[in-house]
Amino acid sequence: MDYRQEALEKHAEWRGKLEVTSRVRVQTSEDLSLAYTPGVAEPCLAIREDPAKSFELTRRWNLVAVVTDGSAVLGLGDIGPEAGMPVMEGKCVLFKEFAGVDAFPLCVGTKDVDELVRTIHLISGSFGGINLEDIAAPRCFEVERRLRELCDVPVFHDDQHGTAVVVSAAMINALKLVGKRMEAVTAVINGAGAAGTAIALRLRALGVGEVILCDRAGILCEGMEGLSPAHARMAALTNRGRRTGTLADALRGADVFIGVSAPNLVTAEMVSTMAKDAAVFAMANPVPEILPGQALAGGARVVGTGRSDYPNQINNVLAFPGIFRGALDVRAREITDEMLTAASYAIAGLVSGGELCGDYLLPRAFDPRVGKTVAAAVAEAARACGAARI
Amino acid sequence: MDYRQEALEKHAEWRGKLEVTSRVRVQTSEDLSLAYTPGVAEPCLAIREDPAKSFELTRRWNLVAVVTDGSAVLGLGDIGPEAGMPVMEGKCVLFKEFAGVDAFPLCVGTKDVDELVRTIHLISGSFGGINLEDIAAPRCFEVERRLRELCDVPVFHDDQHGTAVVVSAAMINALKLVGKRMEAVTAVINGAGAAGTAIALRLRALGVGEVILCDRAGILCEGMEGLSPAHARMAALTNRGRRTGTLADALRGADVFIGVSAPNLVTAEMVSTMAKDAAVFAMANPVPEILPGQALAGGARVVGTGRSDYPNQINNVLAFPGIFRGALDVRAREITDEMLTAASYAIAGLVSGGELCGDYLLPRAFDPRVGKTVAAAVAEAARACGAARI
Repeated sequence: MDYRQEALEKHAEWRGKLEVTSRVRVQTSEDLSLAYTPGVAEPCLAIREDPAKSFELTRRWNLVAVVTDGSAVLGLGDIGPEAGMPVMEGKCVLFKEFAGVDAFPLCVGTKDVDELVRTIHLISGSFGGINLEDIAAPRCFEVERRLRELCDVPVFHDDQHGTAVVVSAAMINALKLVGKRMEAVTAVINGAGAAGTAIALRLRALGVGEVILCDRAGILCEGMEGLSPAHARMAALTNRGRRTGTLADALRGADVFIGVSAPNLVTAEMVSTMAKDAAVFAMANPVPEILPGQALAGGARVVGTGRSDYPNQINNVLAFPGIFRGALDVRAREITDEMLTAASYAIAGLVSGGELCGDYLLPRAFDPRVGKTVAAAVAEAARACGAARI
Repeated sequence: MDYRQEALEKHAEWRGKLEVTSRVRVQTSEDLSLAYTPGVAEPCLAIREDPAKSFELTRRWNLVAVVTDGSAVLGLGDIGPEAGMPVMEGKCVLFKEFAGVDAFPLCVGTKDVDELVRTIHLISGSFGGINLEDIAAPRCFEVERRLRELCDVPVFHDDQHGTAVVVSAAMINALKLVGKRMEAVTAVINGAGAAGTAIALRLRALGVGEVILCDRAGILCEGMEGLSPAHARMAALTNRGRRTGTLADALRGADVFIGVSAPNLVTAEMVSTMAKDAAVFAMANPVPEILPGQALAGGARVVGTGRSDYPNQINNVLAFPGIFRGALDVRAREITDEMLTAASYAIAGLVSGGELCGDYLLPRAFDPRVGKTVAAAVAEAARACGAARI
C-alpha cells in the first residue's frame, strides 16, 4: 500500500495520537476529597503564596505547549490552524517518546503577530515551556523574540533552532573528519527563511569563519537593494567578504553547503567548484537540493539530507526532545545560545572518533542515548550561563 | 493526619494529576514516517480540504479545554491563574474518570473580558469543547455569552450550569416525593452570583411557578434602586409577584430553598415559615446556609447540601462529565437549554420511584450509571433540538 494512503488510514484508526490520562485514582469519596474539593484548596493556596510552587504541585514542571498558527506546515505552506494539528500531535508524541516530556498541541486561529504573541503569552502560565512550530517567516522571528521577552518559561521555535542545532552537530563532525577548523571554513546556506536564518546565526555563534546566506535573489550582501527587513538584518550579520552573485558563485571555494530551500538547485558541477573535502547538507524535503550520489560525484567528501533513507539524516528529533528535557530539568527561564551550542556538541560527541566516517556523522534518530545526553549537556549549560532556576 | 496536610503532600508526590500520553508506537523509522513526516502530511491535507475532518483525524472529537482566569477558585476567591491549576487538573481527572473525556487544563493570565474571550476563541480550534471554570461573576456571563457566539464548539461554564442541572435534578425528585407540581411551587434562591443566576434561569426553563432570587440586599425586585446590570436583568426575569424584603420574607410560604451563598444565613425558624413539605438545598461550602439537622427540625421534608458527609450531595460531577460526553458524541455545536433539561431529568430518573426517599434524592457521585445515562439523554436532546452535527 502507498505510505500516504496508509498514513491517512492509520490516523483515522488512531483518532488522535495523544491522550490526556489521569495519574491519580478517583474511586472513593476520600480520593475525591484529596484530588479535588475540599483538599485541592491546599495546593492552590500554596501556589498563591509562591507561584514557583506551580512547578511542584501541578504538571507544569514537565509540560510543553506545541503551538502553531498553521501557516508553514511541513512543506505544505499555509494550510490553516486545524489542518496543522496532525503534525503538532506527532511532535508531542516525539516529545514523550524521546524525552518523557508531556507536550500538548495547540493551534491558534490567527496569523496576526500581536494576537499570536498575546494569546501564547496569556496561556504560558499553564506550561513549563513553549515550542513554536510551523509558523511562517518572517513572522516567526518577531513572534519568538517578543514571547521570549514576555514569558518566564523557555520559548523555542523548533523550525529555526532545532534544525540549526542538528546541522551544526553534523558540521562539527564533518570538520572533525577532514581536519578543518571551524574558524577557517566558509559555509554557504541556501534559503533565508526561518531555518536558514537560524542556521546562519547558529554558525556565527559556533565561530564559523565566514557564513554566506543565499536566497532566490542570490547571495545576501549588505547594502543590496530590495532586501526585506529580515534579509537586510541577516546581510549585515553575514558575508563579511561582501561577496555578490548567485548560489553558484557563493559555492565556489566554499567548505560547507547547507540547503534549506528547494529540490535540485545544486548540480554536481557546482559541488565540484567547492573546496577540497567539502560537506553538503541538502535538506529540502522530500527531494533535496542535490541527491547524495550526485554530490559525491561532484567531489563532496560527506553528504547529509533530511531523509531517513540516506546516510546522515539531519533530523530535529535529535535535538528538541533533549533540549526541552534539559531546560525543564533545571526549570530554565529561557533557552540560550550556550544551551544550543552544548546540544550540538553533545549530539556530535555521540559519534566517537573511531566510528566517525562519511556515512556516520550523526547518531541515529532512535539511538537511546541521544535524549539523555543532550538533556544533561543543556542542563549543565543552563546552570553555567545562569538560565537555570534550580 | 489532617486532610489538608495530606492533600498538600499528595499533590507534591503526584507532581501533577494529569499526563499527556502517546497512543501510537514510535520505535522504528517506519513508525515515524506514518505518525510524523512524511506520512502526516496526508491527514493535514485532508483537514485542509474539510476542516470537519479534524474531528476524525486528531483528538479533537474527545478533547475539552478546562479554562480559568483564577478569579473565583473554589471559595478562595481571586488567587491568580497559576494557583487555580490544581483545581483545573482535578476537574480534568474527573472528566476522564467519569466520562472518558480527554480534558486539558489552561489558565489565562488576564481578567479582561475582551482578552479572555479573544484568547479562548483563538485556541478553540484545538478542542471539541470549552469548559469555563472558576471565573468570577459578573464577568463570567459576558465571557460565556460572547464565546458561545464566536465558537463552533460547545462552551459551558460549569459553575453556572453544572450546579443548576444537579440542583434541578434534586428538586425534580423532591417535588415528585411530596407530590407537588413544578408549575405550582415557589423557589427561593439565595446568592445572585454565577451559580444563583444560572439556577434561576434553569428553574424558569424547567417551568417552576415562581422563582425569587435574593442577594445581600434581600429579594431582587424589578425597579429596585442600586441593582447592578446583571442583577437588574435577573430581577426582570424573576419574582413576578414583585415581592420585596429580606431572605426571611422570601422564605415565608416558599416550597424550595436553594442556597449558593454563605454559612449559617438560614435558621430553623425561617424554615418553619416555609410551605408544608419544604425542600432545602443549602450548598454553601464547606459550611452550608443551614445544617441538615436544623433544617429538618424547622420542618423541612428534604435537605441537600454540597457535602459528601450528609445525604443528598449536590455534586457537579453528576452533570458535567456526561453533558460533555453527550455533546462530544454528537459533535454538538453548543449546549442548549434542552440538553441541560434532559441532563437534569436523566440524573433524577436514576433514582427509581421505589428507592426515592428524603435521604436519597440523587444518585451517588460514584454511581457508574450516571455518566452514560446523562450522555445518552444529552445526545438525544442535541439531536432533537438541532445542536447535533452527527
